[in-house]
Amino acid sequence: MVVVMSPDATDEDVAHVVEKVESVGGEAFVSKGVVRTIIGLVGDLESFHGLNLRTLRGVADVHRISDPYKLVSRQHHAERSTVWVGAEGSRRVPIGPDTFTFMAGPCAVETPEQTLEAARMAQSAGATILRGGAYKPRTSPYAFQGLGVRGLEILADVSAATGMPVVTEVVDARDVPVVAEHADMLQIGTRNMANFGLLQAAGDAGKPVLLKRGMTATIEEWLMAAEYIAQRGNLDVVLCERGIRTFEPSTRNTLDISAVPVVQATSHLPIIVDPSHAAGRKDLVVPLSRAAIAVGADGIIVDVHPDPESALCDGPQALLGTELRELAQACRRLPAMVGRVGSHERVGQG
Amino acid sequence: MVVVMSPDATDEDVAHVVEKVESVGGEAFVSKGVVRTIIGLVGDLESFHGLNLRTLRGVADVHRISDPYKLVSRQHHAERSTVWVGAEGSRRVPIGPDTFTFMAGPCAVETPEQTLEAARMAQSAGATILRGGAYKPRTSPYAFQGLGVRGLEILADVSAATGMPVVTEVVDARDVPVVAEHADMLQIGTRNMANFGLLQAAGDAGKPVLLKRGMTATIEEWLMAAEYIAQRGNLDVVLCERGIRTFEPSTRNTLDISAVPVVQATSHLPIIVDPSHAAGRKDLVVPLSRAAIAVGADGIIVDVHPDPESALCDGPQALLGTELRELAQACRRLPAMVGRVGSHERVGQG
Amino acid sequence: MVVVMSPDATDEDVAHVVEKVESVGGEAFVSKGVVRTIIGLVGDLESFHGLNLRTLRGVADVHRISDPYKLVSRQHHAERSTVWVGAEGSRRVPIGPDTFTFMAGPCAVETPEQTLEAARMAQSAGATILRGGAYKPRTSPYAFQGLGVRGLEILADVSAATGMPVVTEVVDARDVPVVAEHADMLQIGTRNMANFGLLQAAGDAGKPVLLKRGMTATIEEWLMAAEYIAQRGNLDVVLCERGIRTFEPSTRNTLDISAVPVVQATSHLPIIVDPSHAAGRKDLVVPLSRAAIAVGADGIIVDVHPDPESALCDGPQALLGTELRELAQACRRLPAMVGRVGSHERVGQG
Amino acid sequence: MVVVMSPDATDEDVAHVVEKVESVGGEAFVSKGVVRTIIGLVGDLESFHGLNLRTLRGVADVHRISDPYKLVSRQHHAERSTVWVGAEGSRRVPIGPDTFTFMAGPCAVETPEQTLEAARMAQSAGATILRGGAYKPRTSPYAFQGLGVRGLEILADVSAATGMPVVTEVVDARDVPVVAEHADMLQIGTRNMANFGLLQAAGDAGKPVLLKRGMTATIEEWLMAAEYIAQRGNLDVVLCERGIRTFEPSTRNTLDISAVPVVQATSHLPIIVDPSHAAGRKDLVVPLSRAAIAVGADGIIVDVHPDPESALCDGPQALLGTELRELAQACRRLPAMVGRVGSHERVGQG
Repeated sequence: MVVVMSPDATDEDVAHVVEKVESVGGEAFVSKGVVRTIIGLVGDLESFHGLNLRTLRGVADVHRISDPYKLVSRQHHAERSTVWVGAEGSRRVPIGPDTFTFMAGPCAVETPEQTLEAARMAQSAGATILRGGAYKPRTSPYAFQGLGVRGLEILADVSAATGMPVVTEVVDARDVPVVAEHADMLQIGTRNMANFGLLQAAGDAGKPVLLKRGMTATIEEWLMAAEYIAQRGNLDVVLCERGIRTFEPSTRNTLDISAVPVVQATSHLPIIVDPSHAAGRKDLVVPLSRAAIAVGADGIIVDVHPDPESALCDGPQALLGTELRELAQACRRLPAMVGRVGSHERVGQG
Repeated sequence: MVVVMSPDATDEDVAHVVEKVESVGGEAFVSKGVVRTIIGLVGDLESFHGLNLRTLRGVADVHRISDPYKLVSRQHHAERSTVWVGAEGSRRVPIGPDTFTFMAGPCAVETPEQTLEAARMAQSAGATILRGGAYKPRTSPYAFQGLGVRGLEILADVSAATGMPVVTEVVDARDVPVVAEHADMLQIGTRNMANFGLLQAAGDAGKPVLLKRGMTATIEEWLMAAEYIAQRGNLDVVLCERGIRTFEPSTRNTLDISAVPVVQATSHLPIIVDPSHAAGRKDLVVPLSRAAIAVGADGIIVDVHPDPESALCDGPQALLGTELRELAQACRRLPAMVGRVGSHERVGQG
Repeated sequence: MVVVMSPDATDEDVAHVVEKVESVGGEAFVSKGVVRTIIGLVGDLESFHGLNLRTLRGVADVHRISDPYKLVSRQHHAERSTVWVGAEGSRRVPIGPDTFTFMAGPCAVETPEQTLEAARMAQSAGATILRGGAYKPRTSPYAFQGLGVRGLEILADVSAATGMPVVTEVVDARDVPVVAEHADMLQIGTRNMANFGLLQAAGDAGKPVLLKRGMTATIEEWLMAAEYIAQRGNLDVVLCERGIRTFEPSTRNTLDISAVPVVQATSHLPIIVDPSHAAGRKDLVVPLSRAAIAVGADGIIVDVHPDPESALCDGPQALLGTELRELAQACRRLPAMVGRVGSHERVGQG
Repeated sequence: MVVVMSPDATDEDVAHVVEKVESVGGEAFVSKGVVRTIIGLVGDLESFHGLNLRTLRGVADVHRISDPYKLVSRQHHAERSTVWVGAEGSRRVPIGPDTFTFMAGPCAVETPEQTLEAARMAQSAGATILRGGAYKPRTSPYAFQGLGVRGLEILADVSAATGMPVVTEVVDARDVPVVAEHADMLQIGTRNMANFGLLQAAGDAGKPVLLKRGMTATIEEWLMAAEYIAQRGNLDVVLCERGIRTFEPSTRNTLDISAVPVVQATSHLPIIVDPSHAAGRKDLVVPLSRAAIAVGADGIIVDVHPDPESALCDGPQALLGTELRELAQACRRLPAMVGRVGSHERVGQG
């Protein structure tokens, strides 16, 4: 931490800061410039926070230097992690630095038939993990909110039928137990990234968590949200970049593709990309998926639907037919260019 | 709703859209231009949503024309509403178009003494509603998270001692009953604006709700969140503008002062301003409060603390001394310039 | 300046940084923490820039501590400045900390009659400086681009007829001489805030400059643009906040009202507000003008037009009738609440 | 165009709009809904703009439906264009849909030796076009502003020595002739994207133009800027995505990778990506370049410098050594995965 004094700070002001820092066991290094003095702080960050340094007389600014997260940091754990999804040995699918994992399924679970058909589509395109929403957080209280427990049961049935582990969203801390009972991985959606009670409940549930980036969260805030989960003893967290809110209206969100290498440089957690929700447009899903693979993402998660015209949620971005075939091809060929194998080659080896 | 066809759409594509619209009881008006055809839709918006018009062949774009919210709209209720806060007749404080309501208190409840002292400061500066946090949503799991139920008890005691009704934040749907039992008004914070389960629980609690704008929510999304509460039969919702996330780093958030007249033009709900959290800097609180009064806000909510240097939360933005006196003066003199009286002149008249 | 070393930086890396800093005459203070080392730099900022410290081995980050501008800073000139606009003694109008200056006129000069009529409207509402565009920077090459020199002549005639000094935009460095010949103040528009050649030409023209904030410029970048002008020996620069680009679609831009006190705390230059271009909606101009006065702006600049329906530019935001009367009243009554007199009371006293 | 009437608009208000539209030769189709009436407009867009429809009584909103640009639109020219850079037959390099073009060089031209060395590095990594700045637009008036004409001469010499055509930035309309004389392609930088006088001058210069996206420009505004150039008869415009300004601080800008397929769907102009300026960090250049190739960009432009530590401009993002070799490998292998050949295979065939 660095404390920047204002140009008119007195020697007493500087001494008061030093005294405060030392009172909590820290060390303060004073650098006196012509215009202003800066004070470097060494010691325990948490104890410095309690000092309210910004309120002290003569203090112009306080800069934090080190990362505020610990458990999810590569400083804590230098090697990048692999998270295994799926209960039984024969179905366990890896998400991590050596593989590329393709996850797909319908935005919302509507019927057993639609879900099974979407799962078959996903599987034949190469997907190894099934996604599908039973609880849908919707901006409008008048929109379809998901089938709830019935949706979870359908997902569990389709998972059994196809052998694909299932990831599904949980939107309320009270639902965590029932979701954890039916699904292999809990998804925390973009609107709930800062719902700290939900993060903690997910951390306690004993299943891997897929944590989407808040659509207006900085990468640092996102990693702090992961830290909330990790703090409960659950380090099986996979991050998912899904676009951020910007001024550009031609896509629903702006996919922050740079977030992939930035996260990989600072955190050991795996990171995947959701091109469907970033773009909100079907025609961008294939090029953005290719970009995600090439930039080095550990996987992608994509909407597919057997009949987008009748989908109850996000029909306009669901793939089928030609586009899905193109995507399948990209997922088969491109990962090797960045030194990865498809996750199907490692299923059950975790 | 308006459907814009792409330049290469065929007559069949147009006919298919018209057919779909008519199948749910709507009417479709076709305007054929030289380059493209547009189709005006008349009928029930909800039924059109189910059609997934964007997925139909030849459709380039779909524009929504009317507002997606109903109960909170001025079309539903042309006159601007007044919300009364406080249980007993003698303490009920109005927030609405005729008055200006000053709410103040400490960011976090720390001790009975600190809370009472802050309440006395607030009251002598002219505040009529006490704010104070018992549950704090913090970005870092390592930061002070609030006193919980013990904090609620302190607030209730201080409320009884001062006669000021209390507003306090609730961050988890499971805590709504206990918060509603102790407080006069429930606050939904910026990070939870899209926590739909919490909104619904707050709507069911039988107390007025203070709904802060999500720091990256559009005004329309914010009004949709209010609609979630209203849908449970609770129209006692007060909106609170508290700054939005932008690229400008010199303030913690950018106070969107225009949101006040924009909301007042489209919704009947009262709207207040939180200059403390918008700025994150003590020296901006007084000028921004003056701007809020002058733009026509129905109130402000401000952080005060008897000893900012030792505050457990947001010390750098808490007022005391000269600044609080300046603010008190602005709250006394400026509201009359925009045709309002201070809320203290109407206490107990609701 | 503070250099933050990465956790794995060696003692040699630190020594290399120190050596580099000393090689240009600076001093380096090393603070060795448990995890990382930070180095405080004292000396001439410009010389440090040439070192490319970020490229050195072991350097994780470099934080700038002091402001990058000089001439426009309050550190250079602690008292806030007053800029006088208008050539002859009897017409000179002040813009500064003691007064409130109301500037108004048509977005674009169209005809002598329309300009004169708009000027008369503005003057009778209390405006003391006439605005009007002869050169219009338009997003579309197909839109009206202004009358050019003919527009300047009309402005000069109307200025003579009304006794109001004139401010008008210049969009090309090649036009600076002719604009400076006809107008009393040169306006640099939002799209040209970073057109450095134009800034320098305006700095050389011998007339005061009204510098609008780039719609996506930080306050620091804006002050750097002012520094470009000041560097040519022209300190008669007035800043104009006119809204920044954000995700909120209900206003054309988001008026950053906090920019007024932020700028006043760091720069001695006067700052005014343009509520018309910020909002892009007539119904917001009066409330935003009131907010601007209350927050402490040194003036406002507003679009008026005798017949908005036929305006060639920005008709939807031009005031007339009731709204203009309301604005006139606010400009008469509110400045006194923040300790200012109307600029008309000081005309010719500079 | 679609005019949305407010709910309280009268029949007369609707009739007035229709009359206005017909007065300029347009047709108006009225769709009367239960709550509001919408009016579809068919005819010449430009003539409708002059009507100021938003100022008419009863009009709530006006939606533009079609694109505002023409010459650069795929509706004007369905096939994607190839732009050839370089004067003589034997050196002409294509940028277009069939090829992948790698452009590289130093951010700023400093000396003949540094420029030649950087060009050799670029060329041996596979680059076919040399970039280098002689005029640098800098936020600070105290920073290195480029060598000017001397820099242009160095570039021309290095171009002759290596056989690589040269692209260089022009920042002032007055410099266009001298830059056009020395360089093969004129670059308009991000700060000047809306400098319309410069766009027109570049359009008149008879050389291809590389138009960078304004760091806060929407894609539509960017294409309008290209339209300014095209309107002067110059359709040899190549667009360059270089990151947009967002709230995320970990990269200098946020690379909007989706802009590539979005532009390719609406405009026939080629589009390349600048990963160096987007990221501002050397370690992201290679992954972002891979993403750019995979998403389908027509090329990339990258900073290289023989000695980043001593670079006068943007040293921290310049590649050399291992990273440049990695990039060279990606440029050799990845384009084939998206159906392209390296531009070197087509040099001189235009």
